Amino acid sequence: MAQGLKTGICKVSVKELYFNDIPNGSLIEINGWVRTTRDSKAFGFLEINDGSCLKNAQVVLEADKIDNFAEAVKLNIGSAVSVQGRVVLTPNNKQPFEITAVSVAVLQATDETYPIQKKRASVEFLRDIAYLRPRTNLFNAVFRVRSVAAMGIHEYFQQNGYVYVNTPLITTTDCEGSDQMFKISTLNFNNMPKNKDGKVDLSQDLFGKQAYITGSGQLHGEAFAMAFGKIYTFGPTFRTENSNTKTHANEFWMIEPEMAFCDLEELMNVEEEMLKFVIGYVLENCPQEMEFLNNFVQKGLIEKLQKVVASDFVRIDHKDVIKILKEADIKWEFEPEFGGDIAKEHEKYITEYFGGPVFIKNWPKDIKAYYMKLNPDGQTVAAVDLEVPGAGELMGGSQREEDYEKILARCDQMGVDKTSIDWFLNLRKFGSCVHSGFGMGFERLVMYLTGVDNIRDAIPFPRTPNNCEY
Amino acid sequence: MAQGLKTGICKVSVKELYFNDIPNGSLIEINGWVRTTRDSKAFGFLEINDGSCLKNAQVVLEADKIDNFAEAVKLNIGSAVSVQGRVVLTPNNKQPFEITAVSVAVLQATDETYPIQKKRASVEFLRDIAYLRPRTNLFNAVFRVRSVAAMGIHEYFQQNGYVYVNTPLITTTDCEGSDQMFKISTLNFNNMPKNKDGKVDLSQDLFGKQAYITGSGQLHGEAFAMAFGKIYTFGPTFRTENSNTKTHANEFWMIEPEMAFCDLEELMNVEEEMLKFVIGYVLENCPQEMEFLNNFVQKGLIEKLQKVVASDFVRIDHKDVIKILKEADIKWEFEPEFGGDIAKEHEKYITEYFGGPVFIKNWPKDIKAYYMKLNPDGQTVAAVDLEVPGAGELMGGSQREEDYEKILARCDQMGVDKTSIDWFLNLRKFGSCVHSGFGMGFERLVMYLTGVDNIRDAIPFPRTPNNCEY
Repeated sequence: MAQGLKTGICKVSVKELYFNDIPNGSLIEINGWVRTTRDSKAFGFLEINDGSCLKNAQVVLEADKIDNFAEAVKLNIGSAVSVQGRVVLTPNNKQPFEITAVSVAVLQATDETYPIQKKRASVEFLRDIAYLRPRTNLFNAVFRVRSVAAMGIHEYFQQNGYVYVNTPLITTTDCEGSDQMFKISTLNFNNMPKNKDGKVDLSQDLFGKQAYITGSGQLHGEAFAMAFGKIYTFGPTFRTENSNTKTHANEFWMIEPEMAFCDLEELMNVEEEMLKFVIGYVLENCPQEMEFLNNFVQKGLIEKLQKVVASDFVRIDHKDVIKILKEADIKWEFEPEFGGDIAKEHEKYITEYFGGPVFIKNWPKDIKAYYMKLNPDGQTVAAVDLEVPGAGELMGGSQREEDYEKILARCDQMGVDKTSIDWFLNLRKFGSCVHSGFGMGFERLVMYLTGVDNIRDAIPFPRTPNNCEY
Repeated sequence: MAQGLKTGICKVSVKELYFNDIPNGSLIEINGWVRTTRDSKAFGFLEINDGSCLKNAQVVLEADKIDNFAEAVKLNIGSAVSVQGRVVLTPNNKQPFEITAVSVAVLQATDETYPIQKKRASVEFLRDIAYLRPRTNLFNAVFRVRSVAAMGIHEYFQQNGYVYVNTPLITTTDCEGSDQMFKISTLNFNNMPKNKDGKVDLSQDLFGKQAYITGSGQLHGEAFAMAFGKIYTFGPTFRTENSNTKTHANEFWMIEPEMAFCDLEELMNVEEEMLKFVIGYVLENCPQEMEFLNNFVQKGLIEKLQKVVASDFVRIDHKDVIKILKEADIKWEFEPEFGGDIAKEHEKYITEYFGGPVFIKNWPKDIKAYYMKLNPDGQTVAAVDLEVPGAGELMGGSQREEDYEKILARCDQMGVDKTSIDWFLNLRKFGSCVHSGFGMGFERLVMYLTGVDNIRDAIPFPRTPNNCEY
């Protein structure tokens, strides 16, 4: 029953009205925004939302008890009000309570220029008013689920002894390929200082050389895993990809755990346990939001998620997946190959084939990164992708190559420049051990949890090519 | 009692040995890194750290029971080992238990080139090996406190109904002044495309215009507070400041809460309650680390923090602070002025004067930002800085100007370009209400909690001018 008591009246949130036991007849104050109004001659109703939960509080106005009845019942959607009134419990109604208003202070009334009006707006229209869209039920639900899922992730890792590491965003280390990284600079683009050979003199830039914003915290995370045993990162990452799809954004959040003394099997245990924990956490802590999303975004969403929590994830080698795909009576757009990647159509088939999440492991070495552990067969690496029904690849991870000579050889084979990652390679000389880690795109998880099918609707202010508003 | 049971032997962490009740005589496996070795003819001792907690587990080796006794007792610091052995409870000793080894598998032995040896290294030396320094007691303690403090912050806000918002890092919105922001680009710096007037053609850049990485999420945070009521951000921010001091870094993490229907007094309540909660959370969850920091970094650290939790923070107007400073029998380097800022020497004096944290509020409008609420006196704004003993300004916040016409006037008076923030200003037209927020630099909090006095030691991989290694 919140903070302020200026007037001797308890300020309460709508969420507290739904979830706390506030006694019948209590005199309370709620502050929020008008969602709808209805009126007859003697009565009026305001639906008030204060953002504390998805649902509104219904305020009953009686013409002869409220000074500004005529004003209040005509308020436009989005107007800010402060209502004082009495709680009336209505356990047999659709809403478990209503508020009989004693007074309605209009803090600021919106007019017809307010971009969100009663009629349902398209997600495309709402993307263009990204600073207002969290006021709609859809985005209110999605972004609250996002917040709660983030907390679930922190809960899982902290409860299990992981240390949260803030790996650097600004970097000169080439982790995922510098052609995929944004360059940063403090130089004047219209008057770049030049050195003798006519190239830009980066020694005059703030860091004295070319710096980037990173696409991954994995390398730095490994360094900390070699000190703390188990760590995780959770922060923004960047890619310069010039592609406009439903699943690409130039800025997104990643979770990258890294565990010492952990092999591929144990890695899959962590991924499975973590995902189940986070799903359970969201279902428990966002009942109103999940019900809304289940009804209006993806029918069967809750059942899908509950089924995942109760299931054992399939663990299967890449080569056995290819076999299943080849044997399937399907005309593929991309023919499955033993040495090749797995396309979206294959991901879809294989999760439907097994009816749940599938770990695909031991991938052909040539299509995976240099830092992945080479298997004894010399042909595959101990990598694993988690495929989930309806969302495709949710996590990608691997056991890491912990042998110094072997990782050097892999760098050379794959043309990886060793100079900027020498410190990372050195970790293999200084108390090296079996270790593993994975990355999970947070927006992809949010899409999976909420059923929204466009990454632009899973992140507050999406950044995509030619789109950096707000 | 962790995951893997490959050998039928429980893998346990050193932390579990300290904090869980593991029965005397249990056969266990620990994996970690050697911290010290000692040996006599028939016996040897290994101190093993696995990063799960600050303290080590002592392993007892008996020459006639371990195959590789001679190898094991000569292991260099930093070597990775897997030890199987029996737990022997020793409640009367300094250490509550030891492990009698059954076997010691050497996973990888380091040699004398390992940069961290037994003798105590300076923090300056350790900064140069930032990828290894978390293996030292000092940085292990600091970065675990950092992780736990981050969790404490999430706990506080989530328990109190705040929604965690990931505001964008890439932005075209000028929040703190674009001259203080890094420009980002995908263009080739050595071959910039030009338009007709000879300037760089930014329309060819990925976002079609100049984009930056941000110095604050406040403006975007306000937009979400107008939907969710109470929100917080917690993410990295960037400044281009070319200054080498103990308190400046070019990349750092910030927490920026924003609350609708919240005035300056309520804002201070939140700041005070949050800080006390986080201090209590760290003291409770990092007992070994805080004891170490109290003994080796800042004598009296724990007492200082406990005192803060028990105190009521002073709340005083800026003008009354200036009065106290003017009346003090001190020759100031910077003369205190009623219309002026408060220097470091003043911050120090005033927190010592009151013997605890001090909220300084209602600042002269001309030295504060355009978005702060103008007080009825027309001269001051409803801004507040929290000063804490030994660390200076820890949080800065304000009630925000919620009146559309007044904020436009302030923009004009202060020469703020309104075009890139028009959406932010519009929030004052669409259900505007009294609202407030603050920012806290996370590294500054970590310094305050741990006693380390250089920001470079409070962040895993610090970025400062001409310093962007790793």
